Amino acid sequence: MRQAGRYLPEYRAMRKKAGSFVTLCKTPELACKVTLQPLHRFDLDAAIIFSDILTIPDAMGLGLSIRENEGPRFERPIRSIDDINKLGALDPATDLAYVMNALRLTRNELNGRVPLIGFSGSPWTLATYMIENGSSADFRRSKSLLYQEPEALHKLLRLLTEAVSSYMIEQVKSGAQVLMIFDTWGGILAHADFKDFSLAPTRQIISNIKNTAEASEIPIIVFTKGGGPWITDIAATGCSAVGCDWTVSLGATRRLVGNQVALQGNMDPSILLESPEIIREQVRVVLDDYGGGAGHIFNLGHGVSPGVNPEHVAILVNSVHELSQTSN
Amino acid sequence: MRQAGRYLPEYRAMRKKAGSFVTLCKTPELACKVTLQPLHRFDLDAAIIFSDILTIPDAMGLGLSIRENEGPRFERPIRSIDDINKLGALDPATDLAYVMNALRLTRNELNGRVPLIGFSGSPWTLATYMIENGSSADFRRSKSLLYQEPEALHKLLRLLTEAVSSYMIEQVKSGAQVLMIFDTWGGILAHADFKDFSLAPTRQIISNIKNTAEASEIPIIVFTKGGGPWITDIAATGCSAVGCDWTVSLGATRRLVGNQVALQGNMDPSILLESPEIIREQVRVVLDDYGGGAGHIFNLGHGVSPGVNPEHVAILVNSVHELSQTSN
Repeated sequence: MRQAGRYLPEYRAMRKKAGSFVTLCKTPELACKVTLQPLHRFDLDAAIIFSDILTIPDAMGLGLSIRENEGPRFERPIRSIDDINKLGALDPATDLAYVMNALRLTRNELNGRVPLIGFSGSPWTLATYMIENGSSADFRRSKSLLYQEPEALHKLLRLLTEAVSSYMIEQVKSGAQVLMIFDTWGGILAHADFKDFSLAPTRQIISNIKNTAEASEIPIIVFTKGGGPWITDIAATGCSAVGCDWTVSLGATRRLVGNQVALQGNMDPSILLESPEIIREQVRVVLDDYGGGAGHIFNLGHGVSPGVNPEHVAILVNSVHELSQTSN
Repeated sequence: MRQAGRYLPEYRAMRKKAGSFVTLCKTPELACKVTLQPLHRFDLDAAIIFSDILTIPDAMGLGLSIRENEGPRFERPIRSIDDINKLGALDPATDLAYVMNALRLTRNELNGRVPLIGFSGSPWTLATYMIENGSSADFRRSKSLLYQEPEALHKLLRLLTEAVSSYMIEQVKSGAQVLMIFDTWGGILAHADFKDFSLAPTRQIISNIKNTAEASEIPIIVFTKGGGPWITDIAATGCSAVGCDWTVSLGATRRLVGNQVALQGNMDPSILLESPEIIREQVRVVLDDYGGGAGHIFNLGHGVSPGVNPEHVAILVNSVHELSQTSN
């Protein structure tokens, strides 16, 4: 999950200097520096590139802006089927060169210390942002398109599936050693719609990546917020690991899906707002739930909240290292 | 789920005349009339008493007010362990006499036409409203109490378990023929916490009701929004039916839980904003998912939204009757 961010004073300083979040993302030297900030502080086992989930819609011409405390907005959101028909294919090597340069720089700076994770939003999740023009309480527009014009939505999802596939393959060529697909809004769909509109595109992306020589061996993590009801389906997409939010039991999930995938997660991020003792105790709860043994990537069930004390993240990371040693 | 409400013009007229939502709830004649409003329009198979989920905290002295477009607020929310210690036990027959009178009136008016459902919020759900002072985006205060002072939270939940139990038993004595427990906010908890803080109190309430001669045979429905990951645990509480939101497959759930409970649900309520054709088609999707046969109570996966055209609810109800006849 997001490691760098507003909870770090050095991030806030750099963002202030850069002027905006989007400038940070689009300036490879700055994105690299921000990516490394948490690595300087914490004994982390991986780095995740600092970027935005909406780089693809932005590169497709929607015009992204992110204002503090307001969330993302597009200048030209999708408002009609016509808008979908006008969207073109993407050449990530050139259209998203800034992400690739940030990956190259960061991979070089990391110099083998820890692996570097690249990521993208899932097609469904990107589509909801493009249609709702940001986040949404009820996803009214997206659901209307789904029910009224399923073929138009499928067309948009096919475009995004192509774009995410080539984007992630290009990320691997640029230095990403692990890929993570975030399906932040899969969990709002009815179960059959989830399979058609969220899971199927994700499965296609994984297949596209695996069928590309330069990326065929890359581990892919799929995270669906609220994905508990579909965890066995997600595990069967061909991914290497399933990211779990805190509502699922890692132990029960392990028994359900067998050994086909690693499991990543799943501490409730709000626990980082509690005391060191509680954080340590809850790390133990997650480790005990998993039950030891291979195949567990400890993580939060979502990103770090802005109000978190950075010292608490250190306590989390150190507790994970210490307690997972004794429990294995 | 909620049948009467703002989507009905006759409801809006009655609310305007009454002056407030709380007045409607607390005036048995009006609550009875509102309960019957959807029955006059639609060929429904049951009536659910018009009331609020927060009657118990209000009767415990927190002082409820509900302003339009603002949601519920308490004059005296729980802000400290002291506030919990000061809460007293409840005598629902007198402290919530208005609910009992509404049930008696409505049962009498229904005169056997359809069964009457009584309901309550679950202890965990009531506790979150009492602690957050209404709804919440992150349930920060409730989670802090859970992690920092679990014993105080357990104390509050024990009080609420007693209150909900006696409230629901009194509802049966007053004419309710089915009971429904709404665990609206169970789905925000980590899985182990869900079992301790949400499921255990619900299980205790069901046991308390079943052990009371006058209520031992009453069917009890448990609905947990976001309860997909725990559906087998919910089915094992001793309830008669499990309410499902639209993220779970009724067919898959039936295979998972066997025949121990009926399943209620689970059309996405946002579909009521679509065209008659789409509503009808999606009714078929839900019926086909369940797969026919006994044990299915068709319902929405949540309440009817304010913007829904009442004609669409008629189409829903008629489609369910027509299509479930042909599919069985």
